[in-house]
Order: sequence, then structure tokens, then C-alpha cells
Amino acid sequence: MNIITAVVPTHESSLLLTLEEISQLVSHSHDPQETLANIVGLIHDRYGTDVSSVYLVDPVRGDLVLAATVGLDPSGVGRVRMRFDEGLTGLVAERVAPVMEADAAVHPRFKYFPEAGEDPFHSFLGVPIIESGAVQGVMVVQTTERRPFSPNEIRMLVTAASQLAPLVTGARLLEQVAAAARAATVEPPSLPPRGVVARILKGCSLSPGRGAGLAYVIDGHATLGPLPPRGAVDPAVEKGRLDEAVEATRAEISRLSRRISALVGEDHGAILQAQLMILQDRTVERDLDARLASGDSAEEAVSRTLDVYVATFAKLSNPLFQERIFDIKDVFRRVFWHLRPRGGTAVAQGGPLVLVAREASVLDLFSVDLDRLVGVAVEHGGPQCHAGIMARSLGLPMVGQVHGLIDQVQAGRRIEIDGRAGTVDLDPAPEAVALATRRPANRTSAKGRRASATPAPQVFSDRPGIPRVEANVNLLSEADQVVAHNAGAVGLYRSEMIFLARRTLPTEEEQVEIYRKLIEAVRGRRVTIRTFDLRPDKLAQGSSAASCSAHALDWRLVLEVPSLQRLFKEQVRAILRAASVGPVRLLVPLVNRSALLDFALATVREARGELIAEGLAFGADVPFGAMIEATAAIPLAGSWAGRVDFFALGTNDLIASALGLNREDPVGAQCDDVLHPGLIRMIAALIDAAHKGGRPVSTCGEMASDPAGTVVLAALGADSLSVAVDRLADVRRTLAGLNPADLPSLRSRLLEAESVEDVARLVSQRGA
Amino acid sequence: MNIITAVVPTHESSLLLTLEEISQLVSHSHDPQETLANIVGLIHDRYGTDVSSVYLVDPVRGDLVLAATVGLDPSGVGRVRMRFDEGLTGLVAERVAPVMEADAAVHPRFKYFPEAGEDPFHSFLGVPIIESGAVQGVMVVQTTERRPFSPNEIRMLVTAASQLAPLVTGARLLEQVAAAARAATVEPPSLPPRGVVARILKGCSLSPGRGAGLAYVIDGHATLGPLPPRGAVDPAVEKGRLDEAVEATRAEISRLSRRISALVGEDHGAILQAQLMILQDRTVERDLDARLASGDSAEEAVSRTLDVYVATFAKLSNPLFQERIFDIKDVFRRVFWHLRPRGGTAVAQGGPLVLVAREASVLDLFSVDLDRLVGVAVEHGGPQCHAGIMARSLGLPMVGQVHGLIDQVQAGRRIEIDGRAGTVDLDPAPEAVALATRRPANRTSAKGRRASATPAPQVFSDRPGIPRVEANVNLLSEADQVVAHNAGAVGLYRSEMIFLARRTLPTEEEQVEIYRKLIEAVRGRRVTIRTFDLRPDKLAQGSSAASCSAHALDWRLVLEVPSLQRLFKEQVRAILRAASVGPVRLLVPLVNRSALLDFALATVREARGELIAEGLAFGADVPFGAMIEATAAIPLAGSWAGRVDFFALGTNDLIASALGLNREDPVGAQCDDVLHPGLIRMIAALIDAAHKGGRPVSTCGEMASDPAGTVVLAALGADSLSVAVDRLADVRRTLAGLNPADLPSLRSRLLEAESVEDVARLVSQRGA
Repeated sequence: MNIITAVVPTHESSLLLTLEEISQLVSHSHDPQETLANIVGLIHDRYGTDVSSVYLVDPVRGDLVLAATVGLDPSGVGRVRMRFDEGLTGLVAERVAPVMEADAAVHPRFKYFPEAGEDPFHSFLGVPIIESGAVQGVMVVQTTERRPFSPNEIRMLVTAASQLAPLVTGARLLEQVAAAARAATVEPPSLPPRGVVARILKGCSLSPGRGAGLAYVIDGHATLGPLPPRGAVDPAVEKGRLDEAVEATRAEISRLSRRISALVGEDHGAILQAQLMILQDRTVERDLDARLASGDSAEEAVSRTLDVYVATFAKLSNPLFQERIFDIKDVFRRVFWHLRPRGGTAVAQGGPLVLVAREASVLDLFSVDLDRLVGVAVEHGGPQCHAGIMARSLGLPMVGQVHGLIDQVQAGRRIEIDGRAGTVDLDPAPEAVALATRRPANRTSAKGRRASATPAPQVFSDRPGIPRVEANVNLLSEADQVVAHNAGAVGLYRSEMIFLARRTLPTEEEQVEIYRKLIEAVRGRRVTIRTFDLRPDKLAQGSSAASCSAHALDWRLVLEVPSLQRLFKEQVRAILRAASVGPVRLLVPLVNRSALLDFALATVREARGELIAEGLAFGADVPFGAMIEATAAIPLAGSWAGRVDFFALGTNDLIASALGLNREDPVGAQCDDVLHPGLIRMIAALIDAAHKGGRPVSTCGEMASDPAGTVVLAALGADSLSVAVDRLADVRRTLAGLNPADLPSLRSRLLEAESVEDVARLVSQRGA
Repeated sequence: MNIITAVVPTHESSLLLTLEEISQLVSHSHDPQETLANIVGLIHDRYGTDVSSVYLVDPVRGDLVLAATVGLDPSGVGRVRMRFDEGLTGLVAERVAPVMEADAAVHPRFKYFPEAGEDPFHSFLGVPIIESGAVQGVMVVQTTERRPFSPNEIRMLVTAASQLAPLVTGARLLEQVAAAARAATVEPPSLPPRGVVARILKGCSLSPGRGAGLAYVIDGHATLGPLPPRGAVDPAVEKGRLDEAVEATRAEISRLSRRISALVGEDHGAILQAQLMILQDRTVERDLDARLASGDSAEEAVSRTLDVYVATFAKLSNPLFQERIFDIKDVFRRVFWHLRPRGGTAVAQGGPLVLVAREASVLDLFSVDLDRLVGVAVEHGGPQCHAGIMARSLGLPMVGQVHGLIDQVQAGRRIEIDGRAGTVDLDPAPEAVALATRRPANRTSAKGRRASATPAPQVFSDRPGIPRVEANVNLLSEADQVVAHNAGAVGLYRSEMIFLARRTLPTEEEQVEIYRKLIEAVRGRRVTIRTFDLRPDKLAQGSSAASCSAHALDWRLVLEVPSLQRLFKEQVRAILRAASVGPVRLLVPLVNRSALLDFALATVREARGELIAEGLAFGADVPFGAMIEATAAIPLAGSWAGRVDFFALGTNDLIASALGLNREDPVGAQCDDVLHPGLIRMIAALIDAAHKGGRPVSTCGEMASDPAGTVVLAALGADSLSVAVDRLADVRRTLAGLNPADLPSLRSRLLEAESVEDVARLVSQRGA
């Protein structure tokens, strides 16, 4: 019945350790050293070899150290050390794979460690001890006899190492606990050891450019950070320091408030005014003063007062307050930051900052004075997260998906980010700071931009068979660039950015005002306004209230949530009203069901009726478009063509949908995803269905500004490509290189491609 | 140029408040009351009405209270109160919409509040003050004159309320801060007020059934919870209590360890043994004793010792330790739990528990003794999250996406969950506990199950034109059910569950052992083993190390990560070897690119070659299948048909992909998504392409066990449906009701449907 028994010796499966055996190990040990000794003893009994040892990676020094042995000189424990590039044991750790030698001494990597007492032993079998995907140590057996170990023996030791890994690493954990108990505080090593923690953290690119500066860490879950060491405290001096920090914070918030208003084109920054209220409140002031009077340093006063507030609020069940505690933390963090000891350097006093966070909302980008902000690094956040889109609009370098970032970057540490490479350098060269603080062109002041806003020559006139090029706009302040680059139109205005930068919803009147400003600023160009495309990732980080309000505002729930339907109607009214001053199209995001399309169309009809009844001016001709962002909508596009005036292809979401990626954390996404042959066939199906119904297709999203993506979309027959303002020139250059006559044949070849490589080849050869 | 000026009076836009005006409000106030008075003053000046007032929602009592006024009797501030169902102001809050009356007294909802001094005022305009999607208060203007307010005036007051909302709520926040400063601790209201916080939290269904018990809260970010109030402490008594709690914890962990081993079919539960080590370590014991000796209560000793460890570990940069701190927290949480004061009731002593967490990994389900666990509720987690799948396998009720859960449920609170309705009741009736602790059938003990495992009669023999019915298996312990229900085969064995329940990777040998146990347990039925489908959501919660190791193990990165390729090869070897004892198919998850398919096929060839070279027994005939879970793969299926032996459709992911949903948090997902006409056309395209190439298509995922989904998949021509063991009977019943002759016409009608409603109609009429 069991074929295996005929081939492999029956003792094989008995080499697997049983739960019983492992329990024995644990129940007979009361400290880490004992546990390791028991483990080695078990292996020794089981394998009957002459030596059994465990080496562990020293977390501080990054090398291997002998931790327990039967057979070698016991005095070598804790003393015999080797780097990953030394000896056979080092080789196991370096390769993360078993190493076996019948006669170890003949191996080129053999190294003699006299203190180990290894002389009589010749054969060697070492296997890595792995946990959480990293090498934690090496398990070694040796014999005096010169003999090979069988594949079975190797597999069995691998298995034993795997079974015992949790105990081995658990034992090390306890050693650290013991160390913690001995020392009041354990100082972290000043520099992480080589090979244990990388000095350059790898993430993904969210916005290009480089920036170096002090890390400004935002972490909704953490407190302010470690208190500085405390000497004698003079209450009067501390009071002076605190007053200065509060004053600096107040000035900073006022500046930010004005800046946000200018960027998103709204008339106030009330959320920051609410923060100012906290700073000016007599109770808060009294609490801080009481702390100082009791002998606290300014930092202690700030930290402890915040702790009391946070603890209190944690007990209140109203989710609004849970969210608002972020404001209080934010204000106190600003004050704490201004209390930082200032070195003599310009950098420390008012120099560049790099924002560091677990995840960043658009609003978080405004936590720091934009004039000092040179980069953003976050643990989460995919290329299409809204903070990333905003960072690109602001010309701000940004890196996302940097795992372990928050744990490794302390506030005030000097770091450098490379937005194109997607890296964070934890220890940049000092000159990096000077080099990297230059700002990309579109971060110059509004004045500087306006000066250069002479219309570009009309060299890029529309050519039949080639898509028109339009601009995506996120901020009102980008309107000048649309004019300067002479984009044909605003192909996508992401209206939700207004909301994201202020955390409250603009009313109909405010929206009318903002949209009109934009329409007038682009001087007669058509503006496609997409209604709020709100999803939870766009709200403030971490707070439970954000999740609550997320449901109240999540566009995807519009068919179920009446308040969202009211909001949508208000926005449609505002867009129609704004259209009285210039040409406007209305675009509805994420249309993935017929019911949603019908609801949106009905809302537009109702809004028009209301505006007529109320006698308010509105644009009579506002084309209605459906944004296709989920692949399930594509087979339905043919029947929808009779109901809409145009289609827009949201390629960011569509690619995530087609390839099964998570938009917020697109693990597995690759830069050549835009060339996926399945995706291409689906886009072609959409464009064909739309054209058959006589409707144009515009595209928005990163695909259109990828050079290969530009060629593919042109070949498939997209009518217009809407791209970020700073990509306009590149996209026009790519399109200028295309011959409309070649496109039909390229199209048919693309539709036959079976792999990304096929598509890449076709594109680079232009189908020739 | 500006059409609007011709239609609307120019003073309209001046009614929008400017940043300057709002700044003035803030800079002239130093406490919340002052801020509210300033706000009301500004509105009063701007509108020129006779009364301007702000009412706020009392967070404790849940009613409205007059907070500031110009025009009404100032002594009414803080005294005039009304419920949401009282008066016009209440009506504004109730409707969350403006209310306007030219003569308030004639309105049916008018209510006279003598203490307000409202007698002389007749016209009324009230608008809600909204923040974070919830009503925070009402802004009211009134005039002595009986007159209507114009639509413009209404819109303007709505806008002002929106602009001022952050300040209004900010002021309330500060009031709470002041309260916090006065009282050392603020007791939370014992019951949340009606209308402010719901007593029943709404989430989504992850696993059916009801369960009531004490909340056992897991939160990786939080500490142990509030310390109980402290009386005089006798060190000897405390030592006794602590020893007892440690002993209870030790017994609990040992029990869990054995239980996990039995469920996933592995030979140890080493991760829990590592937790036992922590409890037995002399250093930990010494630290706890030292705390007791210094006068701490047992709870304080546990809590403070943990705090020291956590603080120490936070400083170590090795991500492994960051992850391991979760183990330490877990152990200390268990001890802390056992220290809970025990009421006289059976419930408190050893009664049922409901696990409550932000997000739950599969391993977290095992944090609690399974014999006491009657339900799970999590803040995140979509229907396809792996903890949910495991919960269904265990017959454990589970609710996901319960927003605000952690903030509202304290450890030890009695709650009830309804897994089918997707709700959490924070204050269940006492009898609920008794009612709801019955367990579904498949949670009976292994013995009980085996007794009932007489083969079902073969009434459901295969019929041509109707899909075969197979079983999904997640746990080894489900194999008996496969036999008892006489499922045709195991259509999907989710091998990653082995990993998820132990946190370490099983080696090749361990896998061979586990797979053979399963193959033998299902007595000759074919087993389709899917290789590890690991993604970050399946790893332990929250820890940064989890994200690190996630990348080392995330299947989607297999083409880039060599260690993952080694792991895949090992698993392929183990599957081939296990196939020597019975019929096996090998299924590769998430094949979304040709390159990935080619890599997997090459690995299988290499593995066979190695096994031959090593002389190990393996199954010669192991069909190879590709799992289609992303829509971009569908257009390529035709060309892949020549390279694979079968296709499997992963409908859970495919639906998420098609509709652009996030698998982990599928906001916008609807229960009729399986009927989406676009999805149906894509599935049909896949099945057609596969059949054209002579390859069968099996389906796994929830769609096949939804009655309508069953009919759709049968009509589209799926060859087999693999469903959870407890859905076998239902699916067979649905299929038994189908006439194969009707299916072709149903199919063509389904492919013409344009809306979910169309599809639903066709299915309910069976295409007739």
C-alpha cells in the first residue's frame, strides 16, 4: 500500500520529531541556555553523530556565535565566532542552504577555529535555522569518519532545524528579555550591523526626485518619541522654551493653513484653525504650566500632558473624538518638534524635512511646512494611492511600501530618499543633503510659475489617428501649467482632492466657487470634472472614525447610502452650475454595474430639473461620461454606449482589477504590467464597443504616460490621453514618433500577443 | 463673462466665510465657550437675523443642548435640551437636513421650550452641523418677522455650518480636555446613549451561526487593558493568584498545541512550545516576583513587566524580535486573562468566549481554547480572508468589517455575534448566552464525527451535462466529512493552511507526511493539492516582521524571489512524492502571466528529474492545473490550454478582480455580485477556451455554493464544482433540480443579460 516503504528505510519518518519530544525539551528547561543545550542533545541522540552544535546570528554584531554543542569544546560556547564569509558554517548562513562535505578540510571555504576543538572531526553537515524568512542560526552535525551524508539525512536535519526554529529563536528572545531585566535601558546599536539590517531600505517609487533631510515621523499609534536625557531643570527656562515652541508652532500652522487654501482653491483651512484653538486654549495652557511648575522639562510637560489626554479620550466611545485625538497629537507633535535641541547647522534650524509615516493621507502631506518638505516615505501605499498622486502634483519625491520603515527611523534622523529608485538611505553621506534639496520645476512659487506661463508654440496640433493629449489636474495651482504647456484640455480633474486636503466636505456653493476658478484659470479649455472618487484609503490614517466616515463617503456604496446620494446630487448641481462659465464634462468614477449608471443618469436629470425650478444658471451642454475601472464593466460597454456621451478608462484601477492586485498595496505589480496581453485585449474590446456605439474613449492613469503604454493606447485607438502636467512633453514626443498608417497593423499584432515579452517586442519595433 | 452675476444677487458669494474671518474667530478666543460665542456672533452679524444659536449633541445623553446664542435668553445655554424627536431643531438633527419654516408655530413638530425665551420669534431656519458623516449639532437662525428663507439663504447657512463644523467640534473636544484635566479619570458612560453609538454593530457575515460569550480582545498595538482598581495588597496572596494564573495558562497552551497538531495534521505545535518557554523561564519568573515583592498586585506585576519588555524590544532593530514580541504579549495576555476576577457564574469561570480583534490571522483563531470559542468578530477582513475560511471549516460563527469594534468592546464584556446577519450585539439579553452556545455539527469532537461517518447513499451519481460535486478541504480533520458525505473528490486542498496555523514553513518531509495522511484519509478519492497561496493578509497581524516575511513568502513575487522558488520546488517535490500513495492533482494558484505558467511547468519537470535521480518514489501521473483568479488571464487561456491538464476557476478572487474590489476589505461588494453579467461573460469565455483546447474546468470558491451561482456555473458548462464540506448537500440539491436539456438555452440568455436583475430573473426562472 505505501510504496515509499519499499524504497526508503522505514526509520526515515521516525527522524521527524514528535510533539511529545519537543514538549519534553521545553518542560525540562528553565532558561535559554538550557533550552539550546536540550535541543542539541536531542539532535545528538537522534543522529548518532559525534558532534552536534547550534550557532546563532548575533543580532548586534551580525556574525555567528557557537551557542550550544555536544562534542566540541564546551568552553567555545559564546567565544567561537565567524562571519558569514568564513568557514563552512558561515557558508550555510550565507547561502541559506544546507552544506555537506565528506571531508570538510578539503573544502575551499574550510577555516580552522582552534578554540572550537574541531580537529578530530572530518565530515560536516550544516543546515540553516530560518524563521520569518531570515537566517537565525545554523545547526551542524559532524563525524570523525570521513563520510558523506545521504540526501535523506540532509532532508531530515533540514526538517529538524525547521521544527526547532521557533524554540531556538524563542530562546534568543528570552536571552534578550534577561538582558532587559539586567539593564534598565538597552541602548540600540548606533549603526545596525551589516547583513542584519540594511542601511538602504527598498520600497517602490511613488514620485520621482531625491530629497535628504531630517525625518519627521508621523505615527498615529505611537506617542511623541523618546524624551531627551534630563539634566537639572529650571522652570523659568523651560517655560521660555515651551512658549517659544508654541509660538513657532502657531506660526507654522497659520502658514500651512494659507498654503492649503491656495493649493486647493478653497476659502479656508478650518481644520488647521481647529488645531490653533488647541494651542490657544486656557485649559491646555494651564495643564502645561502645572507640569512645568512641578519640575518637568518642557518635553516632559508636553509628553505627559498628551498622555493624559490620549488616555482620557481612549475611554470615550464617540468615534468623532477618537478621530479628533489625531489633531491633538498632531499639535503636540509639532510643539515637541520645535523643542528639539538645535545644532549649529542650518539644516537643524530650518532645513529640509522628510516626512515618514506608516501610511500617508493627502492631508498628512500638509503636516509639515511645504517649503521645508523635500520627500515622503511610507510603509504602505501603492503607486496609485492618493498621497502619491498629490506628491507628484506637488513635485515632491515619495517612496512607498518601505517595510520596517517606522521601526528603523527615529524622528530627527537624517535620511535621504530616492523617489525614482524607490529607496530610503538611513545614513546618507553629508553632502547628500546639499545635493538633494533642489526642487523640481513645478514646486516653484505660484509667482515663478506664472512668469514662465507663456503659451507653448502649437507644434503639437492634433493629427488624425493619433490621440489628443490632455492634462490631469489635482490642484487648482496646476491650472497655470495647463496653460503654459498648452494642453488641449483638462482631461481629468480629481475633485476629491478638495476633500482630501481639508477633511470636511465642501458644500455646493464652495464647489461652484472652486470649479469656476479652475474653469476660468484654464482659459477656455474644456474641463472634465470627475465626481468624488472617495475610498477609505484616502481618509486620515488609522483612526476608527476614519473607517466610520469612510462608509458614509465611500463612492462604492452610493447605491446603499442615502447621505452619499445627497452628496452626489449636490456635486452634480455644483458641476452643472459651474459649467455656466465655460465648457465642462461630467465624469462618474467606477461605473461597474448598470444600476449604478442608471442611478447617476437619473441624478443628473433630477439636478437639472431642480436648477431650472430654482432659477439658477447652469451649463446646458455638459456631456456625461462613465469611467471604466473594473473589467466586469467591459462586456457591458456596448449596451451602455447608448446611454453615455463618452467613456473614460481609469487605467490605474483597471490594471489592478485585471491582474488581481490590491490598489493600495499592489504586491506582485510589475512595471511591465501595462504590456500584459490579456489587459490589452480587454482594453481593445472596450474601445471597439465604444466606437461601435459612436462614443469616444479618453484614458487617464499612469499607463498613458508610460512610453510603451502610450504606444499601446494609440494603437488600440484611444481618442485622447490625459496625463499629469509634467508628463505632457514626453507623451507628445512619443506620439510625434508614431505614424498613424502603422497603427492598424500594430493593433492586430498586439491582439495576437501571448506574453508581456511579445508585447514589449512589438512596441519597441513599433509593429514593423 | 460670469453668467451667474446676472442671475443671483452679488452679495451671495460674500456670504461664504473667508479664511481671514475664521482666523479672527480663533485668535479671539481662549476657551470653547468663547469660541462658540464668537461663531454665533459671526453668523449673527452676517445674516442680520434676530436670533442665531448653536445646539450641540451631548455625547453622553445623546440629546441636543443649547451651546451658544445671540437673541435667546443666555441663561438657557447648557439648560435648554431636546431629543432628536422633539421640536424643529431636533427635526434638523433627525433628518440630517435643513428645516425652514416661515411660521414655526404651525409646524406639526413645533415644541415650545419656555426656558429658551423663543416667544417673539416666528421664522425658523436650522441646518445640521456635520463632521465625519455624523450630526454634531444644529445651527439655527430665527426672525421675529414671519417670512420664508430663500433657497440662497438656506444654501449659505449650510455652507457656513460646513465651514465652521471643525471649529464647533474642536471646541467640544477642548471641553472634554478640560473635563479630563479636572477629573483624574473619566469614567465612560456605562451604556452608550441612544442615537450616538449603536448597541448593535453592523459588519458582514464571514461564517454563519450565533455565539455569545465574554469578549477576548486581541490587539497587537495595545497593552493588556485597564488595571483593576487596587485595594490593599498582600504579597503572599498575590503570589498565589499569579502562580495559579500561570499554571492555568500553561495548561491552556499545552491543550491548544495538541489541538492544532490534530487539526492541521502536523507533528508538533512548536510555536506554542516557544510560548511555554516564556512562562517557564527563570528570568521572567524572577522579574514577576520582584514586582510582587515591591508591593504590586498580580495584575500590576504582569502589566509592568510586559511594559518593560515591550519598551526594550521596541529599541531592537532586528525584525524577528519585533515579531516575537507578539508571542510575549500573547502569553502575558493569557496570564492577565486568567487573573480576571471570577464571578459566581459558570460563564465567567470557564464559559464561552468571543474573540475580538482588529484583524485575525488563522493563527489568532487558536489564541483561545477552541472548546470555549463560540465566535469571532474583527474590524477588517472580507469574506475571503483566510481566518474566515478557517472559521467556516471549524464551524465557528464569524463577523468581519465591524468598524469601531475595538474601541467599543472592552475585554470581558459580554457580547453576542450573529454570523449570518453579520452583527455584534454589545448588550445581549442574558438568555442569549444560553441559547447561542450550541455548536454546529462539524465542531463536534473527532470521535463524534467518526461515529457518524457512514457513507451516504450514492443518490447523487454523476449526470452528463451537470457538474460533478467535490469538496474543499482546509484541515486534515475535514477528511472524515469528505468520506461521510461521499464527495466525489477533494477539489481543493488549501495547503497554505498548514503554514497559517503554525507560522513556520513545513519542510518537504513534513509536507509528504501531511499530504499522505490526507490522501489516505479520503480513501481513494482524488485530491487536488493547491500549492501555497500565501499573501500578506494571511500572516500574523500588524507586526512589521510579518510584512517583511510576507515578501519572502508572497506567492505573487515568486518570479523575483529565489527563496520562494526553492520553497515552491520543495512543495512540488512533496506533492509528487505524496502522490505515490493515491491519486493527486497539482494546482498552481494565481496564474496571471505566461511567464509564471512557464516557470511552474519548468519547476515540475525539474522536480521529477531530481526525484528520479534521488531514487525517491513519486506519483507518475499527477495532472497539472492552473488556477485562474485574475481576469487578465482569461484571454490567454486558449493558448495555455495546450500546456496545462486542467483549469480551476478561483471565483472568490476572480469576482474581486472583475469588480475591482479589495479582497481583504471588499467595500461595495454585494451578495448578488456572482450574478454580474460582465463576470458571467468572462467566465463563459474561459470555459469555452478551455473546452476548445480539450481541458476541463473546475471551480472553487463561494460562488459555486451560492444557489444562483451553482445554476450559473452549471449553465456555463463548468465540469466540477468544489465547495465547502458543509455545503455539499445544498449544492447537490440545487443541481438535482436542473434539467441538462435546459442549460444550453439558459446559457445563451445569460450571455445576453445586461444587468444583475436580468440574470437573477433568468436564474429564478431557470431560463424557461
